[in-house]
Amino acid sequence: MQNAIVVLNAGSSSIKFSLFVERGDSLEPNVRGLFEGIGTAARFVMKAPDGSVKAEKSWPEENKLSHEEAFDFIVGHLRSELADNRLIGIGHRVVHGGSVYTRPIRVDQESLKVLDTFSPLAPLHQPHNLLPIRRAMERMPDLPQVACFDTSFHRTQPEVAQMYGLPADLREAGIMRYGFHGLSYEYIASMLPEIDPKAAQGRTIVLHLGNGASMCALLGGQSLAATMGFTAVEGLPMGTRSGSLDPGIILHLIDRHNMDARRIEKLLYKESGLLGISGISSDMRTLLTNDDPRARLAVAYFLYRIRRELGSLAAALGGLDALVFTAGIGENSPAIRSGVCRDAAWLGVEMDEQANVEGRRRISSDSSRVAVYVLPTNEEVMIARHTRRLLNN
Amino acid sequence: MQNAIVVLNAGSSSIKFSLFVERGDSLEPNVRGLFEGIGTAARFVMKAPDGSVKAEKSWPEENKLSHEEAFDFIVGHLRSELADNRLIGIGHRVVHGGSVYTRPIRVDQESLKVLDTFSPLAPLHQPHNLLPIRRAMERMPDLPQVACFDTSFHRTQPEVAQMYGLPADLREAGIMRYGFHGLSYEYIASMLPEIDPKAAQGRTIVLHLGNGASMCALLGGQSLAATMGFTAVEGLPMGTRSGSLDPGIILHLIDRHNMDARRIEKLLYKESGLLGISGISSDMRTLLTNDDPRARLAVAYFLYRIRRELGSLAAALGGLDALVFTAGIGENSPAIRSGVCRDAAWLGVEMDEQANVEGRRRISSDSSRVAVYVLPTNEEVMIARHTRRLLNN
Repeated sequence: MQNAIVVLNAGSSSIKFSLFVERGDSLEPNVRGLFEGIGTAARFVMKAPDGSVKAEKSWPEENKLSHEEAFDFIVGHLRSELADNRLIGIGHRVVHGGSVYTRPIRVDQESLKVLDTFSPLAPLHQPHNLLPIRRAMERMPDLPQVACFDTSFHRTQPEVAQMYGLPADLREAGIMRYGFHGLSYEYIASMLPEIDPKAAQGRTIVLHLGNGASMCALLGGQSLAATMGFTAVEGLPMGTRSGSLDPGIILHLIDRHNMDARRIEKLLYKESGLLGISGISSDMRTLLTNDDPRARLAVAYFLYRIRRELGSLAAALGGLDALVFTAGIGENSPAIRSGVCRDAAWLGVEMDEQANVEGRRRISSDSSRVAVYVLPTNEEVMIARHTRRLLNN
Repeated sequence: MQNAIVVLNAGSSSIKFSLFVERGDSLEPNVRGLFEGIGTAARFVMKAPDGSVKAEKSWPEENKLSHEEAFDFIVGHLRSELADNRLIGIGHRVVHGGSVYTRPIRVDQESLKVLDTFSPLAPLHQPHNLLPIRRAMERMPDLPQVACFDTSFHRTQPEVAQMYGLPADLREAGIMRYGFHGLSYEYIASMLPEIDPKAAQGRTIVLHLGNGASMCALLGGQSLAATMGFTAVEGLPMGTRSGSLDPGIILHLIDRHNMDARRIEKLLYKESGLLGISGISSDMRTLLTNDDPRARLAVAYFLYRIRRELGSLAAALGGLDALVFTAGIGENSPAIRSGVCRDAAWLGVEMDEQANVEGRRRISSDSSRVAVYVLPTNEEVMIARHTRRLLNN
């Protein structure tokens, strides 16, 4: 009988899940899947590690399944996959740990209340992240629940990197740079010692370029600075998010374009970035194969902002030993990687174009002063590892 | 009889003025002064080039002099200083030239209307800048008026450096990165060929550090990128301005702190930056001599953001040949210059501490890869030069 861990990542209308089983020191991925269309036309799919479908189900739209029903359905199916393994706990992805939680926690009624108080900091995500925790504590009060935060990895940053130029009372009210994608950066940092011990101890910039995109400066494997701040809209332009803006623009949109906060929120989160600039698509693959000048401008702006942020993060580090590309675009787009590395030549980056196109793990030339890697990220396994560590102590 | 030029810089409650007289190729500063307290208790002072007071006058508060009365009073006094010189025109500092004016212009009724349309982009400054132009055109219809913009120097930047990650229709409506302090940067750029021909042709970052603070990357003397954007609040933290903020913070202040646009404007422009962080003062001199941890945090944050922006601008340039410090703090604070240069060691900056403390023009060591200068800025003479050039053509 082996220990098993379930990992859940709940969004506004979906829950991603995966099951890991302990094999000696490592955690082996078992089934994984997705429950989507919560509140509308629900659909469940569960796959084996080889990608083959193990179970599937759809519901008509009039059923309108709730988060709680989705949770119960997932857990029922996972129980039947456990075989003779023993479920020791559930690890949950929670976007916000505030300034309080600098590492994952085992959730009890007390800490669940604290996590609720962070909802105003991430109103579009935090409440949904907490629903399955609450449900699990009702249904399986004896099963430990672990919350792993997107923010906690960045709490090692110096105070000046976590603050804004605002009055102290607003900082104390929680307005600071939280940084996000922390589980992804922590996973990459955990892989570095094996791949490049010098980079692991030195100055590395990780580019998490997906539909959400950010960058993080690692010094000795710890977060020193990141591009996302108070929310996940700051920093790089993304699929549909604007990235950094002059705060005066928001006031101008209110004063001169008659927009209110909800309209502006929609603009910044859903209608900007690659989609807004191009007017064509939020998908980098589509834009890279489109000759429309607006598509090319969107790609050029994405690369330009990466260029600028790379310099800014290198300044925080005082130089650069390694770059790591990860997430959807980072793992799969040789064109973007090539553009980033060309712009970073002044920092000592020299790419091996052949290695880049072939998608090798190391894509810098032998003579490059800065080593460049492509590493697939794995936030789920990071959550499973944290959960195991917390429950074995 | 020599040609003479008046330079005016009108704010919300004050007008700065200076008189220049042509001597061969150069423009010699004559009297200069300030009319302040417009609308309240007005005060006028005019000084000779050696700093001695040539005229002074105060009005009781109940008089409430208008911008127009202040203008008439200044011009009356300047006329008596002209002696047998001939006034050929007035050069005005105008904060906003929009995306249209890429250089100074001679103002007529037509262009005055266009300048009016930029008022929503800088509602706190533009209307005041235009008042003396309008008055002069009424009173002295035959005297040429020239408008010199804080924004036009930056219009050489590539498109990606001037834009945000917003939909195209908002860019077309004027939401772009204008950059400011352009007359200061242009003045520094005009001095570089004589001081350091290599830097003039190469990659220079100018740090305009005053009560308003920004930085500009010059490539061959032209603006390539700058830290201020749509408004003068973006970029570095300043005396009372926040500098860059996650746009999500503004939405959070509206949603959770019940602030409206006017309250937020006051917060970002008047209550943040060095003053807001320290809770003590907006004045760098005060903070540098204060041991309070909050004062030290404000200074540390100021230096940290300069460090990050320096890397970001060096990335735009692809490296660095020279740094130039200018404006109040830049010209007068060895401690800040020393901190900035220490943080920029990774870029090849090596300071000569002795030269720095003595306030020499060149403060880098002989072995420094990057030359570092302290150059006093002079926006007035830049306006006078533009005015002469335009009126002599």
